[in-house]
Amino acid sequence: MFEHLPADVLLFEVGPRDGLQNESRLVTTADKVALIDALSDCGLQAIEITSFVNPQWVPQLADAGEVARRISRRPGLSYSGLVPNPQGLVAAQAAGMTEIAVFLSASETHNRKNVNKGIAESLQIMAQVVPQARAVGMRVRGYVSTVFGCPYEGAIDPGRVVPLVTALHAAGCYQVSLGDTIGVANPRQVRDMLDLVLRDIGRESLAVHFHDTRGTALANLVVALDKGIRTVDTALGGLGGCPFAPGASGNLATEDAVYMLEGMGVRTGIDLEKLIDCSSLAASLVGHEMPSRYYRAAIGSRLRAGR
Amino acid sequence: MFEHLPADVLLFEVGPRDGLQNESRLVTTADKVALIDALSDCGLQAIEITSFVNPQWVPQLADAGEVARRISRRPGLSYSGLVPNPQGLVAAQAAGMTEIAVFLSASETHNRKNVNKGIAESLQIMAQVVPQARAVGMRVRGYVSTVFGCPYEGAIDPGRVVPLVTALHAAGCYQVSLGDTIGVANPRQVRDMLDLVLRDIGRESLAVHFHDTRGTALANLVVALDKGIRTVDTALGGLGGCPFAPGASGNLATEDAVYMLEGMGVRTGIDLEKLIDCSSLAASLVGHEMPSRYYRAAIGSRLRAGR
Repeated sequence: MFEHLPADVLLFEVGPRDGLQNESRLVTTADKVALIDALSDCGLQAIEITSFVNPQWVPQLADAGEVARRISRRPGLSYSGLVPNPQGLVAAQAAGMTEIAVFLSASETHNRKNVNKGIAESLQIMAQVVPQARAVGMRVRGYVSTVFGCPYEGAIDPGRVVPLVTALHAAGCYQVSLGDTIGVANPRQVRDMLDLVLRDIGRESLAVHFHDTRGTALANLVVALDKGIRTVDTALGGLGGCPFAPGASGNLATEDAVYMLEGMGVRTGIDLEKLIDCSSLAASLVGHEMPSRYYRAAIGSRLRAGR
Repeated sequence: MFEHLPADVLLFEVGPRDGLQNESRLVTTADKVALIDALSDCGLQAIEITSFVNPQWVPQLADAGEVARRISRRPGLSYSGLVPNPQGLVAAQAAGMTEIAVFLSASETHNRKNVNKGIAESLQIMAQVVPQARAVGMRVRGYVSTVFGCPYEGAIDPGRVVPLVTALHAAGCYQVSLGDTIGVANPRQVRDMLDLVLRDIGRESLAVHFHDTRGTALANLVVALDKGIRTVDTALGGLGGCPFAPGASGNLATEDAVYMLEGMGVRTGIDLEKLIDCSSLAASLVGHEMPSRYYRAAIGSRLRAGR
């Protein structure tokens, strides 16, 4: 175990998008910009800042273009935005985005609930959108969501995931992130999924995206690390919980991942103290505490030290 | 990875002792007995019910003998109590205990802060207490705490842990549990520690005891499983957090361990729904929510389903 641990891992910060989109309290554009600017100062290499979706679907991110235009872009840091369709691509381009992400679900039912289309139709749209984006110089990342389980269909056969990953790569995505959207995966499932997908796709072209809903996110990350995966989606403070379960966990918390990885000798380049400050800011913006374990321990330490 | 996953794992429930001893709100004896009796109905095989320490040290557990006498003992389930010294052994025997646990710290400073004795003196006491307990028919378990890190001394050299484990076995402990008392361990450390200890001690004679303070407990468990460890200390709801850090995590939550293990095909024998009921009861007794991820997700599901 850990014979081939990577020397460094890129944590792809998705809090401003995957985190905030689940929050019921609307965060102002200025506050989002302040949060993203503070994140830019933590040593991160990639931040997903917003989603160019129809504002009717996600009112929290209706200011996508404004946010993209007003943040301070740090050289060497990639800022990306989620794009669901050709209209989203137009908006992302108008806002000056140089990286976008497209997405579909491994579950037919979840895909229909999410974007009102079947998987086949979503793939057709991506076969248009991804080359169009690349033609104007954008990098494109892909997400396959609910790869370990779906709230409507239950367990997902890993064999259904492989062709979706392959299709996104064929369309022009430089990397595909495998998403445990509802946080049901266990380490054995992750091993089995990665063993299968890695037969067809190189590890540098894959990322993992875990949710900590049932506490298994870091355990799943251990397996992904052991398989040589070097890009991991995380959200500051563990933002991204279900709005119907107060206090429940969301995405794998960036803090928790940094603490574990750095302790294992895997570099992330991230300044944990600055990140804790960002999560404190996020907590004040969304109006509730962050679920991240490390964050809570760090805040407890600060309180005891009178800081 | 997971080539030799155990078919089943024994979760050693330590919530009524390691969990409650950190709680500031005093729980009545009747409530403790009700909680332990409810836990006895969950399918657990072992529960550490209390600690026979001087009540001045841990007022919460001043009723150790009363609790031990009033619980309903289920056949096949082992009920144990912590014993720090010869006086504790007398009290445990008077209360009819058939299993006890002794403990010391891998950190000289932590051992002195904890029991006001050096490690060498603690070992001498155990060399008396353990054989005395065995002579009256008790089984004896041992704990070595702060094996991965100490709040006073920082990182602990694994080489200091091995002779302590060996000494506890030599004294007559059937099993020694390696404790990450302050929740600082990472999976690589756990691998290194177990690789070293397993050179001298059989895996059946070892247990692991993780705290989830920084979110790494399940990740560490993954490594222990991969090394063939089959006994894992857990606490219902993740009880055992630091009283100075509200909402912070304590022991590895029994629920989180059961969810992950059963999902991986490792049997625990534990009824998760009944366990959630126990954690709800515990939450009402200590006056705050439980930190367990799985517990919070399950409570959210129940609320949404109107149960």
